[in-house]
Amino acid sequence: MALINEQYLKLPESYLFSEIARKIDAYKASHPEADIIRMGIGDVTHPLSETVVEALIKASKEMGKAEAFRGYGPEQGYDFLIETIIEYDYLRRGIHIDTDEVFISDGAKSDTGNIGDILSRDNRVAITDPVYPVYVDTNVMSGRAGNLLPDGCWSGLTYLPCTAENGFIPALPESCPDVIYLCYPNNPTGTTLTKKQLSEWVDYAREHDALILFDAAYEAFITEPDVPHSIYEIEGAKQVAVEFRSFSKTAGFTGLRCGYTVIPKELKGYTHMRGEVSLNSLWRRRQSTKYNGTAYVIQRAAQATYTSKGRQAIEDTIRYYLGNTEILLRGLKEIGLEAYGGINAPYVWLKVPQGFTAWSFFDRLLSECQIVGTPGVGFGPSGEGYFRLTGFGTKENTIKAVERMKEWSI
Amino acid sequence: MALINEQYLKLPESYLFSEIARKIDAYKASHPEADIIRMGIGDVTHPLSETVVEALIKASKEMGKAEAFRGYGPEQGYDFLIETIIEYDYLRRGIHIDTDEVFISDGAKSDTGNIGDILSRDNRVAITDPVYPVYVDTNVMSGRAGNLLPDGCWSGLTYLPCTAENGFIPALPESCPDVIYLCYPNNPTGTTLTKKQLSEWVDYAREHDALILFDAAYEAFITEPDVPHSIYEIEGAKQVAVEFRSFSKTAGFTGLRCGYTVIPKELKGYTHMRGEVSLNSLWRRRQSTKYNGTAYVIQRAAQATYTSKGRQAIEDTIRYYLGNTEILLRGLKEIGLEAYGGINAPYVWLKVPQGFTAWSFFDRLLSECQIVGTPGVGFGPSGEGYFRLTGFGTKENTIKAVERMKEWSI
Repeated sequence: MALINEQYLKLPESYLFSEIARKIDAYKASHPEADIIRMGIGDVTHPLSETVVEALIKASKEMGKAEAFRGYGPEQGYDFLIETIIEYDYLRRGIHIDTDEVFISDGAKSDTGNIGDILSRDNRVAITDPVYPVYVDTNVMSGRAGNLLPDGCWSGLTYLPCTAENGFIPALPESCPDVIYLCYPNNPTGTTLTKKQLSEWVDYAREHDALILFDAAYEAFITEPDVPHSIYEIEGAKQVAVEFRSFSKTAGFTGLRCGYTVIPKELKGYTHMRGEVSLNSLWRRRQSTKYNGTAYVIQRAAQATYTSKGRQAIEDTIRYYLGNTEILLRGLKEIGLEAYGGINAPYVWLKVPQGFTAWSFFDRLLSECQIVGTPGVGFGPSGEGYFRLTGFGTKENTIKAVERMKEWSI
Repeated sequence: MALINEQYLKLPESYLFSEIARKIDAYKASHPEADIIRMGIGDVTHPLSETVVEALIKASKEMGKAEAFRGYGPEQGYDFLIETIIEYDYLRRGIHIDTDEVFISDGAKSDTGNIGDILSRDNRVAITDPVYPVYVDTNVMSGRAGNLLPDGCWSGLTYLPCTAENGFIPALPESCPDVIYLCYPNNPTGTTLTKKQLSEWVDYAREHDALILFDAAYEAFITEPDVPHSIYEIEGAKQVAVEFRSFSKTAGFTGLRCGYTVIPKELKGYTHMRGEVSLNSLWRRRQSTKYNGTAYVIQRAAQATYTSKGRQAIEDTIRYYLGNTEILLRGLKEIGLEAYGGINAPYVWLKVPQGFTAWSFFDRLLSECQIVGTPGVGFGPSGEGYFRLTGFGTKENTIKAVERMKEWSI
């Protein structure tokens, strides 16, 4: 009798964004004329840059010629892309990464989701709260999260609350977890850690032989000098951290699918008998067994984002999105709402007015302003009372959204 | 202390194809002038068809325009592709599949590897032997395979030997496994099951509430009328089988990465308490949590393989590859070697001459004929004494390989 993985049954029925989509559909059905402004799901809206499209076309043409056709590529990615990544994303910042420490993938969601494959079910896992739901859900699936408690927390996870009260800086936990997910610049709060603050986490992990899973998907949005672009800017981080990167938000690849993961060779995990094992080797084995490489044409597109024209296009787009978060931050302040983030990330995290929950604010904002955002509680218990708006829309819609909220009597 | 998944440590050091690559590299280093004919790894050599390249280019251009740009797509794939698949691959054969029963992915390797996520570790798994190594290795990783025994078998797996003695038809196991992997047309043997033979498996699975994981990656190579293209041609199969399909070998997508998995809604798995759970729902949850969809441009390319020009190109290419296996089969027969498969699959499975092991045959064939194949034992213990050659090369090289073997005095 084929038995299922019963951990899946513990997951609440619907994923955050599906629930939002359902509510929007219901609203649209009863208000077909509504001009809805979507600032919910963190999807980009700017098209791919000319340079990227040209690279895609060039590579597609190659694939149609016998002499240039490429079949199976290396599971961990082509050297042309890995070497470009190392040069621009690391060497320029003084970080030395070897080619066999970079693994190209179809995105940070897959990698942050699949990384648990190489880790024991017995690890105690810590997450910041609120948090990107994939970290939680994938740990539920693998049995590390325990059971969902009435307060919205999973019994097996260690929560590190990040709220306005602590300036969104997670405190070092007293009982040390084995695996710690950190995402900076942060999704969903849009806040960051300074180099000094992140150093404390690296030191803590080194002291306790813990593993940091560092999600840097929003790195390209950093504007302030004191915010590290890579965890490997911190001394000793290679001994304790995996870093996830993505072209999704950086270069508009949400529909093209490309990211990469760095696992330094000196990074070790442990057996129950305290034997040291290279996580780089384990991940290589995982990827060569369960993944067959990222499409050649997509890797060429990713490479094109590093040309001078490609980088210029990214800078322009990111400046545009951050222009939107600036409009949002200013507008919300004028309305008298507290708002955070938005300076080094495409997300603005606002405190909902008193008397609201995150979901009741969602419902009112949708029905009265026709604006869609994301209820903070969807990202974890400490997100209750908060709400996420993104800068990924058009400038016109962002201005319009602020105007609607200004006229709104909540 | 970050603990690793210690199941990974049970895996032998190198994956079959890495070992072959190493041996080729070593040979090339000492014989730089050698004209090596590669008939080992099952990679295609024909470029993408014009129709597919045009679709890739068109979709790439769309992605560069604000009004046509697509960000995140549905995790399970776009309807335009799903509907095309259902029409051509199923409805034309009288099989009714709903749109929410098809999941587009980046290939059958990922899907056959990841499917274990939704299944309990406690399942007893059966594999045909020889077998595609991914089925075995992913079950080792998840702890279902037990330990590697001196005879090359894993203690926790049920082996269904397929050899010349039983005509490569696996016998129904006496003690019923919970999960059964079947791959037909078969990789590596190139053999098939008739509709009647596959029906016996479906009946067996229905009787025992077992789950069949049916890998139909080579379906497009079927030439004989009595060989089922889909397991759903068999009555009742929707209650017991998942079907995996791939564009890799069909349309030359090994470097583009696209496949799909069908999970009928009536297909159930079970909890330990014998509760029924929809595997379709579990897989949807798995994919929406750990996967972010296949690139839009790739899905458009896959769709183009179903146009009349696209299908013609596929037929031509497959006829070419099967022309090669015919040359191989005829040549090997003339040499006096027993060979199987090659009629409904791009693989020829030959019995190595007496006195050889699969690896010693590999070594001699490489050093004396400069031909690379795959030792059968790399696919499992029952592959010892066999050797796989593929039809994916050029016709010229296939003829040359046969000529070299004819002149070879083994």
